[in-house]
Amino acid sequence: MSDRPFEPTIALGHRIRRSPYFEATLRWGVKQFTVYNPVYMPTYFESPEADYWKLIENATLWDVAGERQVEISGPDAARFTQLLTPRDISKCAVGQARYVLICDHNGGIINDPLLLKLAEDRFWLSLADYDILLRAQGVAINAGMAVQICEPDVSPLQLQGPRAHQIMLALVGGWIEDLKFYRFREFELDGIPLIISRTGWSGERGYELFLRDGSRGDELWERIMAAGEPFGIAPGAPNQIRRIEAGLYSWGLDMDAANNPFEIGLDWLVDLDADIDFIGKPALQRIAATGISQKLVGIELDGDAAPCQCVPLSISGQRGRTVSTTWSPRLERNIGFAYLPIALASNGAQMTVHGRDGDVAAQVVPTPFDAPRYRG
Amino acid sequence: MSDRPFEPTIALGHRIRRSPYFEATLRWGVKQFTVYNPVYMPTYFESPEADYWKLIENATLWDVAGERQVEISGPDAARFTQLLTPRDISKCAVGQARYVLICDHNGGIINDPLLLKLAEDRFWLSLADYDILLRAQGVAINAGMAVQICEPDVSPLQLQGPRAHQIMLALVGGWIEDLKFYRFREFELDGIPLIISRTGWSGERGYELFLRDGSRGDELWERIMAAGEPFGIAPGAPNQIRRIEAGLYSWGLDMDAANNPFEIGLDWLVDLDADIDFIGKPALQRIAATGISQKLVGIELDGDAAPCQCVPLSISGQRGRTVSTTWSPRLERNIGFAYLPIALASNGAQMTVHGRDGDVAAQVVPTPFDAPRYRG
Repeated sequence: MSDRPFEPTIALGHRIRRSPYFEATLRWGVKQFTVYNPVYMPTYFESPEADYWKLIENATLWDVAGERQVEISGPDAARFTQLLTPRDISKCAVGQARYVLICDHNGGIINDPLLLKLAEDRFWLSLADYDILLRAQGVAINAGMAVQICEPDVSPLQLQGPRAHQIMLALVGGWIEDLKFYRFREFELDGIPLIISRTGWSGERGYELFLRDGSRGDELWERIMAAGEPFGIAPGAPNQIRRIEAGLYSWGLDMDAANNPFEIGLDWLVDLDADIDFIGKPALQRIAATGISQKLVGIELDGDAAPCQCVPLSISGQRGRTVSTTWSPRLERNIGFAYLPIALASNGAQMTVHGRDGDVAAQVVPTPFDAPRYRG
Repeated sequence: MSDRPFEPTIALGHRIRRSPYFEATLRWGVKQFTVYNPVYMPTYFESPEADYWKLIENATLWDVAGERQVEISGPDAARFTQLLTPRDISKCAVGQARYVLICDHNGGIINDPLLLKLAEDRFWLSLADYDILLRAQGVAINAGMAVQICEPDVSPLQLQGPRAHQIMLALVGGWIEDLKFYRFREFELDGIPLIISRTGWSGERGYELFLRDGSRGDELWERIMAAGEPFGIAPGAPNQIRRIEAGLYSWGLDMDAANNPFEIGLDWLVDLDADIDFIGKPALQRIAATGISQKLVGIELDGDAAPCQCVPLSISGQRGRTVSTTWSPRLERNIGFAYLPIALASNGAQMTVHGRDGDVAAQVVPTPFDAPRYRG
């Protein structure tokens, strides 16, 4: 994600946490880290583009232990968890996962975790941060509900790519065939306690393996790499090129507390008509009534990989801004997301992006970028 | 802080925030970053040891914009702020700063910010995190108090070192002579709005400059470097060697939510007898009554700079662990902090630290390490 040739190193200390896979990723040649929810998280091994091809051609294994879990349990767990999200979770079954938003009192998006319903009275918010742990504990202080809120010893890996399915078959057996999208199951792999879900952040077929004993991290990593070897597995990381192609957003980059769900087109994650109580409901009702002023859209940019991430743009005399952008080696196009004034946010609209190396012409296109229109 | 020769780079994207001084630090040759409260923060320029000498001989300027402010304002601001900390803040004057702890319902330390009282009804928690912003907003939801809680556009620099005082004199004029320890004042430097406090994290004389307009960051940085040039100023960063010498702790490394204030020897930050209400009070009363099982102490380790940070130790057949450790080039000793069983945590106690390169003998010593006994 660097847009300059200069490459400072990262301080590898102990204030930021080391994942159970940290040593394994060093052994396997990680070249760059970011920090995610105070945990070191690899960003690439060979190069972002080389990792991308390995992901879309075979499968890559990612240390995403930075995706911490916030566990909510107790008699009022369902009601309390609902309080945190505008999506109606009453119909979520045990063993089912849901993509949800967490909003603040202004309707701003403060996280977009995966919700896992482990039992009628036990939930995980995955991808959520230490932020959200302290936040939820803070909300609970005067909520008058019987809940416990903690961060359990759980460290996810993601195995993503077209051959992830074959690798999982070799690793855990035939039951994986029956695991539907956004469902999960408990499983022990040679005594290593896991929860395995069919979810991920790649747009490819993929799985998340939630390790429930941090001391077994190294063993689990090597076990998966060995099982994947015949299928061309490689170490990898959340790949920015692939997730942008797939139209997946990154919280903190494409959206944050200054954005409401309607601006992002995530209206389907807000159930204003359901008989549920959640933080931000009055604010979201107001926004739904008065409308939004800007909208996040997909854009295609002329030319090759220009540094156009998070820069201003002009459209019909008005202003907007890009967020994520990337060169897609497969589509051979520069693609990304941008916020535009609502009246101008329609497919085909033309704009000028003020990139760091000069102006670039761009236009609004539908997402995901990897939809069949590009493939045909 | 790295204890291995291998040096991965840091992903310089846009999910993690760039401080108003980011471009300036790149221009001035920053070599390594960490991430602090989702902001890139420099860790050194020339080398940790070269930066250390510049700090203790002249002065260094640090981009600590990652020390975000949580602003609490409104009619109930004082009562609400008190709710967050066990230290009695009723006698804190406007224009005064206090080092405080923020504890959770278990009495665990979730942050250790600097509190600045800007007005009777307006406070900043500095060093506090996005964590604490969401946390405080969560607590406020059902607290029934009239408060607004936000993150203002404020980005601190620290200017630390024996010549910091002369540089400030050249920069802002003679009033700085009258600024007492832990006091602050509003000031405009060529129209750049600042709050300037006599505080810092070095053990040296120093100041924090809280920039109140992010768009003026580059200008402020260059203005200070120019004023400091005759005094040998250099770009720097929070220096781990120096702060350990000074007996200053790093939250997230030396203490976290699993630790209570009594274990850290921070009893003076807990006012159990005051007629105040704060989160964690019942838990801290229980701990005060029953006692603690471990204690954080200063240690001296034999030999030279061994990788002994965050490793186990043995003492009289019992277990403990080190946290921060460093080689002090000035004291020519390996020093640090360790958690020991309470019964064994007395000066002179001998232990064996199980370092990454083998066992190292160590003993308990008083802190700060830079106290006169070392200098004489």
